[in-house]
Amino acid sequence: MHLFYTPDLTDDSYRLSEEESKHCVRVLRLVEGDILNLVDGKGLFCEAVITSAHPKACELKIVDKKADYCRRDFHLTMAVAPTKNIDRYEWFLEKATEIGIDVVIPVISRYSERKEIKPERLEKVMVSAIKQSVKAYLPQLEPAQPFKVVVKAPFSGKKFIAHCDEGEKVLLRDAVTKGEDVLILIGPEGDFSAEEVESAIMEGFVPVSLGDSRLRTETAALVACHTVNLINQ
Amino acid sequence: MHLFYTPDLTDDSYRLSEEESKHCVRVLRLVEGDILNLVDGKGLFCEAVITSAHPKACELKIVDKKADYCRRDFHLTMAVAPTKNIDRYEWFLEKATEIGIDVVIPVISRYSERKEIKPERLEKVMVSAIKQSVKAYLPQLEPAQPFKVVVKAPFSGKKFIAHCDEGEKVLLRDAVTKGEDVLILIGPEGDFSAEEVESAIMEGFVPVSLGDSRLRTETAALVACHTVNLINQ
Repeated sequence: MHLFYTPDLTDDSYRLSEEESKHCVRVLRLVEGDILNLVDGKGLFCEAVITSAHPKACELKIVDKKADYCRRDFHLTMAVAPTKNIDRYEWFLEKATEIGIDVVIPVISRYSERKEIKPERLEKVMVSAIKQSVKAYLPQLEPAQPFKVVVKAPFSGKKFIAHCDEGEKVLLRDAVTKGEDVLILIGPEGDFSAEEVESAIMEGFVPVSLGDSRLRTETAALVACHTVNLINQ
Repeated sequence: MHLFYTPDLTDDSYRLSEEESKHCVRVLRLVEGDILNLVDGKGLFCEAVITSAHPKACELKIVDKKADYCRRDFHLTMAVAPTKNIDRYEWFLEKATEIGIDVVIPVISRYSERKEIKPERLEKVMVSAIKQSVKAYLPQLEPAQPFKVVVKAPFSGKKFIAHCDEGEKVLLRDAVTKGEDVLILIGPEGDFSAEEVESAIMEGFVPVSLGDSRLRTETAALVACHTVNLINQ
């Protein structure tokens, strides 16, 4: 399957960008009459036929459309502190996109060593992952936000904070219910501060454990993401 | 916590290697009387005190020993085809070590693009991961083996093969029982061949699905590893 990401698709015909036309015609060597697939990142999955295999402006005609393609009946939002080494964050985004995630909020907390992200590069990783895993929904990457803003934002589902400190915690596995929207907070390498955990609890977050293993930030985030997906399987 | 990997630890005193002595004395700036921890990779977790902070031959005295440190009551063996891009395999090994795995078998199957691995580099990744996640057991990395050998080897637990082809499959989540030893086969980018799946079934492997998402080899392997760990939580 040749899948293209076409976020600006609105019509029944489409012209691939110069870069994608080149990929389609020169690299994949597709010709007039060949079939390819398009996703718009908002749930639309299309089958298209090449009407003109121009290497700089390849023209397509949409022949089949599926809306809400593989739509899931729950939403997973994860507020994850960017890792010091951004490769590890990109890796998390790639894997979470493959497994299933709806919204990612880079949360900047007290012990965050990295306080900024470059969204363009992270978006690219996610676009590449939806193409690779044939998904019609592109996860939404929000701008980096301070911890205080994230914990106070309204959210109409269950809210969890994973942290490594002492204190009463339930296993995330036992706290998630199938079909329910979920928001999970994952801290940076130095974890959330005790004050942050406390303020999250005040805002209705339930403290959770991901098990006995000591996990890196990006591993913890992925484990939490997969746990929610597994319960919803 | 300063954790060192000391596979040759047998006595109540220990001399760190030249490289680790340097790390201990010059980088961490530890001095005589400071406490550090040692794991031997076979379940032994020790507390040691520095008796001589020599930058090339740092001497330690063991002051406390715990055998079978954080021993788990199940064994997870994963036979995973090496990925074409070895970084992705290293990534899987790092994450699986953090989450929990006992034996890794690089399995070479019909559509494997990579047919060889360099165990030294992969071992290093796992040693680094046990130090980071404070584990006393180092997962065992077996030599690369052909698919035929792996499926015919005796294994006294449940055996699963994950593949993407049609055919009757159960969800891995529903097929694993807590406390049971498990062996899971994960194929290369091109998946296992139909003949390979058939021959595994003949040898008692149960075909499993990891869910609806189309996952890369290393993501599938990690998802399977985490599923087994979650059920055993």
